[in-house]
This record gives sequence, structure tokens and C-alpha cells, in this order.
Amino acid sequence: MSQGSGEHQLKYMFYPKSVAVIGASRKPGKIGHEILRNLIEYGYPGKIYPVNPSADEILGLKCYKSVLEIPDEVDLAVISVPAKFVPEVLEQCGKKGVKAVAVISAGFGEIGNVDLERKIVEIARKYNMRLLGPNIFGLVYTPSKLNASFGPRDVLPGNIAFISQSGALGIALMGWTILEEIGLSAVVSVGNKADIEDADLLEFFGKDEHTKVILIYMEGVKDGRKFMKVAREVSKRKPIVVIKAGRSERGAKAAASHTGSLAGSDRVYDAAFKQCGVLRANNFEEAFDWARALAILPPPSGENVVIITNGGGAGVLATDACEAYGLKLLEMPKDLEDKFRKYMPAFGSPHNPIDLTGQASEEQYKGALLEALNEPRIHSIILLYCQTIITDPEALADAIIEAYTQAKVKKPIVVNFVGGVECDRAMRKMEKAGIPTYPTPERAVSALAALHRWARYAGYIKQT
Amino acid sequence: MSQGSGEHQLKYMFYPKSVAVIGASRKPGKIGHEILRNLIEYGYPGKIYPVNPSADEILGLKCYKSVLEIPDEVDLAVISVPAKFVPEVLEQCGKKGVKAVAVISAGFGEIGNVDLERKIVEIARKYNMRLLGPNIFGLVYTPSKLNASFGPRDVLPGNIAFISQSGALGIALMGWTILEEIGLSAVVSVGNKADIEDADLLEFFGKDEHTKVILIYMEGVKDGRKFMKVAREVSKRKPIVVIKAGRSERGAKAAASHTGSLAGSDRVYDAAFKQCGVLRANNFEEAFDWARALAILPPPSGENVVIITNGGGAGVLATDACEAYGLKLLEMPKDLEDKFRKYMPAFGSPHNPIDLTGQASEEQYKGALLEALNEPRIHSIILLYCQTIITDPEALADAIIEAYTQAKVKKPIVVNFVGGVECDRAMRKMEKAGIPTYPTPERAVSALAALHRWARYAGYIKQT
Repeated sequence: MSQGSGEHQLKYMFYPKSVAVIGASRKPGKIGHEILRNLIEYGYPGKIYPVNPSADEILGLKCYKSVLEIPDEVDLAVISVPAKFVPEVLEQCGKKGVKAVAVISAGFGEIGNVDLERKIVEIARKYNMRLLGPNIFGLVYTPSKLNASFGPRDVLPGNIAFISQSGALGIALMGWTILEEIGLSAVVSVGNKADIEDADLLEFFGKDEHTKVILIYMEGVKDGRKFMKVAREVSKRKPIVVIKAGRSERGAKAAASHTGSLAGSDRVYDAAFKQCGVLRANNFEEAFDWARALAILPPPSGENVVIITNGGGAGVLATDACEAYGLKLLEMPKDLEDKFRKYMPAFGSPHNPIDLTGQASEEQYKGALLEALNEPRIHSIILLYCQTIITDPEALADAIIEAYTQAKVKKPIVVNFVGGVECDRAMRKMEKAGIPTYPTPERAVSALAALHRWARYAGYIKQT
Repeated sequence: MSQGSGEHQLKYMFYPKSVAVIGASRKPGKIGHEILRNLIEYGYPGKIYPVNPSADEILGLKCYKSVLEIPDEVDLAVISVPAKFVPEVLEQCGKKGVKAVAVISAGFGEIGNVDLERKIVEIARKYNMRLLGPNIFGLVYTPSKLNASFGPRDVLPGNIAFISQSGALGIALMGWTILEEIGLSAVVSVGNKADIEDADLLEFFGKDEHTKVILIYMEGVKDGRKFMKVAREVSKRKPIVVIKAGRSERGAKAAASHTGSLAGSDRVYDAAFKQCGVLRANNFEEAFDWARALAILPPPSGENVVIITNGGGAGVLATDACEAYGLKLLEMPKDLEDKFRKYMPAFGSPHNPIDLTGQASEEQYKGALLEALNEPRIHSIILLYCQTIITDPEALADAIIEAYTQAKVKKPIVVNFVGGVECDRAMRKMEKAGIPTYPTPERAVSALAALHRWARYAGYIKQT
């Protein structure tokens, strides 16, 4: 469905030199106002041109009667006018030589106006413009300081590209990522996917140096074959995480009435995702848990995992989770047991889980962690800590960051601290230092398991 | 294994008129110091007697050479002396007429000192004392303002009794409940369960008016038959949530080396729990998610659930989760659809999920919620909100609280708001008002499903 020049044109969408907001409004709360304000306040450094036939100036910027009046090239036009005016506006954009358009307006295929939707795609194609939407909340691309959405403003920069088929949920999740301090390279609302669809964005983000992980909330795909073809290739370079809603029969029906997607049989999706190396998450919490690990950790070079803990209980829970999520715990060789024994009292356990006991100090944690990081027979590490009065969580966080920085080899590590507000602070500190942290042992294990699955698909772990 | 007078004696453990801390220490950081300090600072109103042969005063309290010297009755003795001195101290407690003892000290069965453990149980039995432990971090009972533990001090009062077989994890989870603002009636560290075991505590908390839910972290049970017998009865009155670690073979081995539990086949546990109405959670996040709902919601009187949302995507995710967790979504009768249509624009959906659309106002949410609360064909409600610029999360929280308060009938409701920090604040507000809230649609559904499972077992929902 995409054009030959598609990828080329998508660059103008994410790296525009100038943006027109057609349907810009003076009224706070109006979509055409909020988009313009987000563009300005998020710090977009290019030219911004509000278009509104009945205003001279909005938010301090000179306003134009139509896009044709703008005395400059326009790379991206964000369109927020009533649906019936969209064809006319698109014709003007085409004549102006606009490269890409994001049609915010609703009132197309999603409410049965299929002809109107077909018409706008035809106009876009005629002028070789790529079209995002319609029926979307906009797009964000943090490397360009571009927030052309009416969602929350202060999206944190990072390297996860988030693509959402759902509007309200997508906007809400933008806010949630800010709350959870999750960095994003992009947020793209795909809406009705009349022209630009998931596969196009996979191609773009697959090559985008600012994106390490692509996360998609999806209710259905338009062209399954194309999606699979592209996903199979992109997955070899970058992990793709998908939340595919409409698992259940009733959920699929609800999805159909929501976005008009033909959700298809869930088992078909499941099989297709597996075949393409796509990591399917059960919910958005899990999806972002995985994406955070995938975005900052190196891939493991083998299957051997060790658990380091100061709490036997947490170690047991993580062991159970390793089996449930398909991670292989290293059978500890005698010489390794002896090495780890140095970092624990006599009643500790150097088996795997390595139990440093509740008496473990920062130094012992650091010693054991360095041992694991520098040991070639160990490929990934799960580090757990239960808050005690013996070890201060923040001092322990510093010790872990030091060990991770000092280690000769980079290998994946996921961390879970269980305890009070001090643990929360310590985890945020590690997160900032590039170590992914989780609120439970199971969620840490689940994220590491996703990384292992991807590493197997992409060939970092040799299949035996 | 318990004595005939067991339950009677347990009262002295949770409602002691006086507590002796044997092995009280002057040194901050020492267990015998921290327990004494927690007792004092958490506001225990009874008499506190530190016992230490080489101190005159600790933390402003007169110190005694031995428990025998205390010029008063002692209901509960908390013992923190080296393992080898515990038998002697217990003999003194017995002679003194102490009713219950909590043996903090480690160094018994868990490291192979089975004889020493047997000996202390014999002494306790001889004097008709109940014994908690050994190898524990203590106990907390918030209705008595009793914090006789060396865990965090400021445990929040509530009606969940938390029993932990794991020490480090148990302490860490105490801190975590404070961070998460989860209220507890009790925290009991059961350690080696030499005398008091889960079944004894189930009996006590089953009748305790301050406890609505009993949550157990368990690696194994000593007397499975007794546990089942008691759990079966208690479950009819109060929900029991269990995290049973050691699911996997390797996890079971780790549990065995950790607490010496014979973990047994996981499938046997699974079947036994189901038979007794015990709700088995996969992890502690899930366990507390469930417990919060079970602790404050009335049981549903039937199976019919409705989802109210302003985001189609969130509605689809919740629908999928209802199927996955075994909740039945009401097939909306025509007259009910018409009722709900009043609270949405033309493009909304009065089917189930009831989609008020992104344009939903507080008033529309409140109207739809009141409709659902007052409608006898609806038994439980899942309320979802995706943050928009149209509805303020905190104003919406107020509207929801108002509706819940005004409704003629009390029925279960679980809430999920997705968005930024304003949603977080709004959820904490609802939580305080007695409405359980969750960070994702799936976690909300999972908690409601646990409540439904329990209501089926306990006979609130008539099985058809």
C-alpha cells in the first residue's frame, strides 16, 4: 500500500524543517491550539506556521489564511479541520509541495465514511505526500524536539519508539511514560492507517539511529503479509514489542467496533509474531518493562543466567519465574561456587540462586556482581535485594553502578529491590545509570527473558 | 501439633498487656535494640520490659537482669539471644508464667540444629506457652499498636493480615506496603514454624474482627491436612490469598535449602488450594492487588460485570482480561443500552464495554456509574479512564467517590486510570475513599476476578 518513495518521505515527517498547523486555534483546550502550543513549548527549532483564515496571530506567531500563503517550503502539515474540509486542505498542501501530512481530524472510516477516507488517500498519493491518520492525536519525535500532538507535552527523550492504534489509550500512555520516567524516541498515533501503517514505521524506525526498540499497541493490521515481511527483517536488527489487543473473541469484537480493525484469529497473530521474532506482551506494563531492558542492555551471548540475592524468598520467586519464562539457570561449577563463597557468611549459598544472606554488605554485593560480570560462563545476571537494616539501598545502588561500570565485559543485568521509599529512590538512580530495575523479581525475570528471546532470534545466542 | 488452648494463648501474642524484650540491646542496629525501639516508637500502650543482665536502662526504660525479676505479669516475651541460651531463657519464661513467646533467634532447624529446635518446643509445651518462630523478624498487630519486629516501624493500619515464611522478603514487603500505602492488621514472621504454624494463625485471624483478608507467603506447610481443614472453614468467612513459592522444580529445591521446607509437588498444592477456596497468587504484586480489593469491597451477588471506559483501547484490554481471568461480561439488554446512551455522544457505544468516548465529562462518568450501581442486573463494575484534556482526573475521582457514596446498593468496583502524575494522585484519593485502584486495566480485572472466585466459594454468588 505504500509508495516507492515512502521511506524517503517519512523523513520529512520526523525531521521537518518547517511545520504548518492547519486549523490552528486561538482557544486553549481546542485541539488546533494544543498542538501548536506543544510544538512551540517542547522547543521545536524549525519554522512553525499556524494556518487559520480568521486569525492574524496565534501564540505570538503570524497566522496564514491558507497553506498556499506561507512564504516558505513546508515539510509537514498537521491538519485539524472538520473532516469535510480535509480534501480541500490536502489539495492545497499538494499544490504547495508539502511532503508529509498528519490528519488529526476524525470522521472518516472509523464512523463509516470510507469514501471520504479513500478520497484523502488519493489526493495524498496524487501529490506524492505521505499521510498519517486520519483520526489521530499526532506525533512526537524527540530527536527533532518535535511534539506535534495534543497529548502531554514533556515526553522524555529516550530510544523507544511507541506506535499506538488507540487514541485515548495512546495519549494516556504518553503521560504514563512521563510519570514512570520512560524515555521515548517517538510517539506515533496511527489511527485509521489509511496510508502510513505499522510496516512503514517499522521500516523507518528499523533504520533510525535514535530508536533501539519499537513498541506497538495494535488492534489489527491492514496488510498482514507486508507486516510480517518487514517485521521479520527489522527484528533481526532491533526488537519489536507488540501489545495485540483483541485476544479474546469478545475483545476482538470490541476492537472491531472501536477502530474498525478485523482482529482476526488470535492464534494466527500469535504464530505470525513468533515467526517474525516479534515479542508479544500481554499488557502495556509488561511491554514497557521489556522495552526498557531491550533499550539499554546489550544482548546476551549465551543462555546461562545467575541470580544474586540477599533474600532466600526472593531467590525462590525468581527461580520459579525463570522456569515460567524460559530462562536457563546456570548449574554452578565447583570452582565458581568457591569464587562466590568469598562474598557470603558460612550459612550463605553459592548455588544458583547465589544467596549472600540478609547480612550481605554493599562490598559483598559488589564483589559477587563483579565476579559474575567478569566470568565468561555467565551470560546474564538477575540481581535482587530485600531491604534490610544492614545494607542501605542507595549505597548498594552506588556499588552496583560502580561494578557495572568497572566490569571488563558488558552483559545484561536486571535488578529488583523490594522495600520502602529508599528502594524506590535507589532503583530510579540505577535506571538513570543504564541498569533496568523492576518492582518485583518476576517482572525483572520477565524482562530479561524477553531480551533472551530476542537475542535467540537475532542470532546473538547460538541455537544448539 | 498445636495445643488445645492454642487459640486462647494466641490472644496474648496479639493483645498483650505487657511485653518483655529479652536480649534488649543498647546498640542501635542490633536486633535487640531495634525491636525495643519499634515497640516504643510505634506507640504500644502496654508495659514494656527490656531484659539484659548488663544494662540498667535502655531507651529510657528500666532494664531487668532476667524475666524472673520483672515485678509484673508478662504476656508476651520477644527473645533475641544466641540460640544456645534460648532453652534457659524459655525455662525462665515458663516459670514466670509468660503466655506467648516470639523467638527471633536463628540457629535452629534451618541450619540443621533440629534437636535444639525440638527442645525449645518441649519447654514451651511444658509451660503451656505458644511459641512463634524461631528464626523470625517478629510480629506486628496494628489494632494493639504493637510493632515487636525489627522491620520497618510505620506499618499502616488496615485489615490485611500478612504472614511470611521468608524473613528478608517479609521485612522488605513490610517496607513496600508502606510505600504503596497498603494497610495491614498484622505482620507475622513464622520462620521455622516450630510450634505456631499457618493453620493456627488462620484460626486466629479467621475470627479477628480487625482482619478481612489473610495473605500468606509460603514455601511449604508442615501439616498439610490440618492446613486444608482450617483453610476450608476460614475461606467461607474470609478470603485467604497465598503466594506459594517453589512452583518450579528448581524453585522447590531452592526453597528447601532456604527454609528447609519440603515443598512437595506444585500440582498437589494447586489442587489443595482450589479445594479449600484459597486464592493462589502468582507473585506478591498480584497477591496485594487482590488483597486490597478483597479487604474493602463487598462480595458480588452475581456474575454480571460491566466495563465503563472513555478509551476504546483500554476497554478492549479489559475485555481480553475478563476472558482470561474468568469474569463474565453482561450481554447488555436493550433497555439498559438505552439508559447508558444518555451519558455519551452519538458515536459512543452502550454495549459492554460501555464506551463513553474521549469526550466523556465527569458528569457523564458519574451518571453512567450511578446507573450501573443502581441496576440490579449488574453485579460488579470495572471503571477505566484514559487521561484526556477534557476531563480532569482529580475532578473525575471526586465524581466517582460521590457516585459510590450516593448509590443505594454497595457493589464491587475496581478502577484503573492511565496517565500522568494527576492520575496517580486521583487514584490515591479513591483508594483512601475505599475504592481499589490499579495501574493497568488487567490488574484491575485480575483483582475483581479474585473477588468473584472467592464469592463463588463462599456462596455469595449462587452456582448455577
